[in-house]
Amino acid sequence: MNDGTGRVDLRFTVEETERSVRVPPGVTVFDAASWNGIAIDSTCGGHGTCHKCKVRVEGSTPITRHDVKTFTRDQLDDGWRLACLVNATRDLAVDVPPLTTRPKAATVGVGRQVILRPAIQKRYVELDEPTLADQRTDLDRLLAAIDDLEPVADLHVLRRLPAVLRAADFKVTAVVVDEALIDVEPGDTTGTQYAIAFDLGTTTVVATLLDVATGTPVAVASMLNRQQPFGGDVITRISATMMDPEALARLQLAASESLSTLAIQVCTEGGVDPAHVYEVAIAGNATMTALLLGIDPEPLGVAPFIMSSPQPPDVLASELGLALHPRARATLFPALGAYVGGDIVAGMLASGMDRDKRTRLFIDVGTNCEIVLSDGDRILSTAAPAGPAFEGGAIRCGMRAADGAIEVVKLAETVELGVIGDVEPRGLCGSGLVDAVAELVKVGLLDASGRYVTDDVAKELAPGLADRLTTLSSDRGEERVFVLHRPSPDAEPEDCVVLTQRDVRELQFAKAAISTGWTLLLEELGLEHRDVQQVLLAGSFGSYLSAASAVRIGLVPKLPVLRIVAAGNVAGEGAKMALLSVRERAGARALLEEVTYVELSDRPEFNDRFVDQLGF
Amino acid sequence: MNDGTGRVDLRFTVEETERSVRVPPGVTVFDAASWNGIAIDSTCGGHGTCHKCKVRVEGSTPITRHDVKTFTRDQLDDGWRLACLVNATRDLAVDVPPLTTRPKAATVGVGRQVILRPAIQKRYVELDEPTLADQRTDLDRLLAAIDDLEPVADLHVLRRLPAVLRAADFKVTAVVVDEALIDVEPGDTTGTQYAIAFDLGTTTVVATLLDVATGTPVAVASMLNRQQPFGGDVITRISATMMDPEALARLQLAASESLSTLAIQVCTEGGVDPAHVYEVAIAGNATMTALLLGIDPEPLGVAPFIMSSPQPPDVLASELGLALHPRARATLFPALGAYVGGDIVAGMLASGMDRDKRTRLFIDVGTNCEIVLSDGDRILSTAAPAGPAFEGGAIRCGMRAADGAIEVVKLAETVELGVIGDVEPRGLCGSGLVDAVAELVKVGLLDASGRYVTDDVAKELAPGLADRLTTLSSDRGEERVFVLHRPSPDAEPEDCVVLTQRDVRELQFAKAAISTGWTLLLEELGLEHRDVQQVLLAGSFGSYLSAASAVRIGLVPKLPVLRIVAAGNVAGEGAKMALLSVRERAGARALLEEVTYVELSDRPEFNDRFVDQLGF
Repeated sequence: MNDGTGRVDLRFTVEETERSVRVPPGVTVFDAASWNGIAIDSTCGGHGTCHKCKVRVEGSTPITRHDVKTFTRDQLDDGWRLACLVNATRDLAVDVPPLTTRPKAATVGVGRQVILRPAIQKRYVELDEPTLADQRTDLDRLLAAIDDLEPVADLHVLRRLPAVLRAADFKVTAVVVDEALIDVEPGDTTGTQYAIAFDLGTTTVVATLLDVATGTPVAVASMLNRQQPFGGDVITRISATMMDPEALARLQLAASESLSTLAIQVCTEGGVDPAHVYEVAIAGNATMTALLLGIDPEPLGVAPFIMSSPQPPDVLASELGLALHPRARATLFPALGAYVGGDIVAGMLASGMDRDKRTRLFIDVGTNCEIVLSDGDRILSTAAPAGPAFEGGAIRCGMRAADGAIEVVKLAETVELGVIGDVEPRGLCGSGLVDAVAELVKVGLLDASGRYVTDDVAKELAPGLADRLTTLSSDRGEERVFVLHRPSPDAEPEDCVVLTQRDVRELQFAKAAISTGWTLLLEELGLEHRDVQQVLLAGSFGSYLSAASAVRIGLVPKLPVLRIVAAGNVAGEGAKMALLSVRERAGARALLEEVTYVELSDRPEFNDRFVDQLGF
Repeated sequence: MNDGTGRVDLRFTVEETERSVRVPPGVTVFDAASWNGIAIDSTCGGHGTCHKCKVRVEGSTPITRHDVKTFTRDQLDDGWRLACLVNATRDLAVDVPPLTTRPKAATVGVGRQVILRPAIQKRYVELDEPTLADQRTDLDRLLAAIDDLEPVADLHVLRRLPAVLRAADFKVTAVVVDEALIDVEPGDTTGTQYAIAFDLGTTTVVATLLDVATGTPVAVASMLNRQQPFGGDVITRISATMMDPEALARLQLAASESLSTLAIQVCTEGGVDPAHVYEVAIAGNATMTALLLGIDPEPLGVAPFIMSSPQPPDVLASELGLALHPRARATLFPALGAYVGGDIVAGMLASGMDRDKRTRLFIDVGTNCEIVLSDGDRILSTAAPAGPAFEGGAIRCGMRAADGAIEVVKLAETVELGVIGDVEPRGLCGSGLVDAVAELVKVGLLDASGRYVTDDVAKELAPGLADRLTTLSSDRGEERVFVLHRPSPDAEPEDCVVLTQRDVRELQFAKAAISTGWTLLLEELGLEHRDVQQVLLAGSFGSYLSAASAVRIGLVPKLPVLRIVAAGNVAGEGAKMALLSVRERAGARALLEEVTYVELSDRPEFNDRFVDQLGF
């Protein structure tokens, strides 16, 4: 059952293997599975029309009209449902049948269906052997048999070609990635076509091993970015390169090792030979991309914030230190600006910002917050410097979203906390911070200006909570705090998990920066709050924010909470899409032309709007 | 003066430096200089019209009407002439004035004038510095300033770009090769634009360092191919790779070392920093090209003689082991067939086989002899297996064209020999062999079937020479020989330089293979001998053959000797053209479509024609 943290646990059983995942409530079982690399049949993209995503759910679950069309009475009684129509509002155990169809399309991103047309293409051919009357070169002979592709052969292939053709009696599989013939393998190897999608985050790196022939995720793994020791955010890492001439090489190595470690892990888990991975796609912000490629990031970190190039060059995966197929390609996402990077472009792709005709606002919340607004015609983007509050920085009891972090706060008669790992609370992560402030505003302990009320007012408005409002002395001086968790009844405030007046100010500044960003973008397109039909909260942090709290503190426009959607790890999803469809990949590059980047820092109206947005 | 070897010595003095070269008589002073990397002003391509190729020649030399238009009476008396109009019929000392103009065209190949449009292009730009109002990326900023080129930047450049731009106050030189932006150099470096043309021969490797901005050769060097220890011809080298799995790697290394050694040598001689060499072009036969690239050559060596690909991939010079600019490009010539390789395609380019409207026959004489016939419309090519006779193999006293080799033979009352190095004769090189047989046929000591006449007939026809016709016993049995050189009056025949009956047979087979080749090509185009307006004898061997002897033994069609032209090292010239002009380079690739390769070995009429061609 729901443990009160606002997340639900889904326990998937796939061919006798169990796998548990935690997702925000309301996510469909199909999406929850897809985000976590668990493949469920589907060709319609989760719209309830293909009737393929059959799963068996334990316990009672609502039956939709599509379920009635799909299953017999006995099957419905037995718990069979279409996964795309089951909302995970509580903990669920889900049986997933093995894949029965080889799909022509895959569902990725925010409910996007992608027709499979990967850059990786394998073709098995049986060639005529050469004779004195047919002296075509080995390459011409092979290319004639795959003449719809017209790839260019690189030296690696030409070195192998004569021997492989003759050893395999001229029965071989051509391996093409994009425009390049990267290998010729003896016999028919069309069954093994893999790629890895990387979300190269500043904090966390995620890898998904994909079977690109079916669009199926085979394994997923994640880890902390090994660049962490150089600093928690992009600015400290850029500073490191400015202070130490060797730091760039070490940061590059750390990024490369992060990718390598995950690549080995997903291949091992998926039982896939790394030599059968022919392409990787990497979505990262401009700084992560520069550091991975060994490009000096200094101009990204100082005004006027200049990138080396909008589109990183296509390189070999081996140049990034990845031991996959020796000629595997690596494709990196383009960036719109120094602070609207490849991760956001991937996210825009995954959320269909360029396709959807609705007016939508995309917000990736973090130290640097990226905002994209589309009215279905024009697309604007900007970056807002939110500061480290959401990642626990500059917050007295702030911490990352790890075990012991309070991630959900509800205040009524008393305090109800959701804690990651169900352990003793140790601190407050970003979503807990937003919840705590939103709830304190709701019960009246914080006024509209963001100031804690006096003890008298507190006792009147929230008698059950007033005694938690107290004063704490520290090297930062004396300040009012609200005690969220007291480890023992007589613990002093300094030993408790508290929210200080200064913490509230930090969050106020952060949310003001963000809301000033989307306010100016809305003004630019002549739109009102109510015109926004959907808000996508993206990124590993944004996806876990409570929609109600985000609305209450003004982080997002004042809209019905149903219009506010957790979009999940859209950067990683965008990377998967780029691997599964060259059309989608081209779409990502086209965004460079389609999206207008708006620089806010030199706008005269910025400060005025910022002050408007400070209050709750 | 001419020492009787058929070659002349030219002693060039350029800015107080002396340089001696040896060329066949009749070559113009301009061509002799050009072939040897000595730059003389010219814009007309050696046609006597630009009046720029002024040199001072010692001793009396004919004055042409162009000389009269160009020089004053005093200058003419002082020896000033136009170099393109002076035929080197005797040894000459030539003063070359320093270059005064920066030519827009260069003369290379067989009198071909090439408009300079190298793949290497440098552009000096002064860029606006970025501001918050102009946040274009570094690359976009640079590309906008060179927007006629639209090159693609590789990772190497993107890594350097931010730091170089800022260190150089945004005043930089873009280095573009073909479609690639390979570097950005601080300041204005447009004065240094170098490339190296390589003729990668089975026996000899030649490198020419070129200033591509002016078309000027800066230095030339040559050496024996370091693959020599694996065998003298391509078949023995291919066999080596079939017998020893490590031989391919060692042959590749040997080729790479040959190129490297010469690259260092020409850069040192030319006073050029190797990092300022941005491109190399390599002309080699199909086997040399495969070995250099590390491609298994076995299918080239066994029927049905199949290449890996017609066009070798473009690679980095560093991938071939060359320590030039780290991103310098290497371009290799395409091949028409396993035995009509990139050296011949380069030679066709240099001799204008695809442009000239005359009916021309191109013959590169060697162990494998390549033949190209053009009627100004269609172009045919073929290969004839001539065997090792021309390179001294299977000839009793055969040797390469080195010191001590007889290279010219004249028979009249007595024997007149031209010997390389003017030393005691040690053996007979290919041109000496052809001369010897031709002269023996002329004086009647060899009959039309190629058999030595009896002593009686010899005494009657050539009384002064008859005593040189004798008999020699060896492990090959007893055979008739003609003594060309007797080291001492009482030397036994086995200690003399002789031409044996078997040697004559070897040459007969070789010339029959070649003449059968061009006979069948002429038949294919419906042409007679007399229709051929020019015969180009190419390659380091062909260029030194006596035209008269070649006609006499039937190696070339029976034509006036003036129609038979020594074309020089056309492979190396073609490589230079490819570096100086992307148009010419494209022309070389177009030859793949324009030239029809004719395989002779499966022709039913081959043997019949071959027997026809055996006699003299």
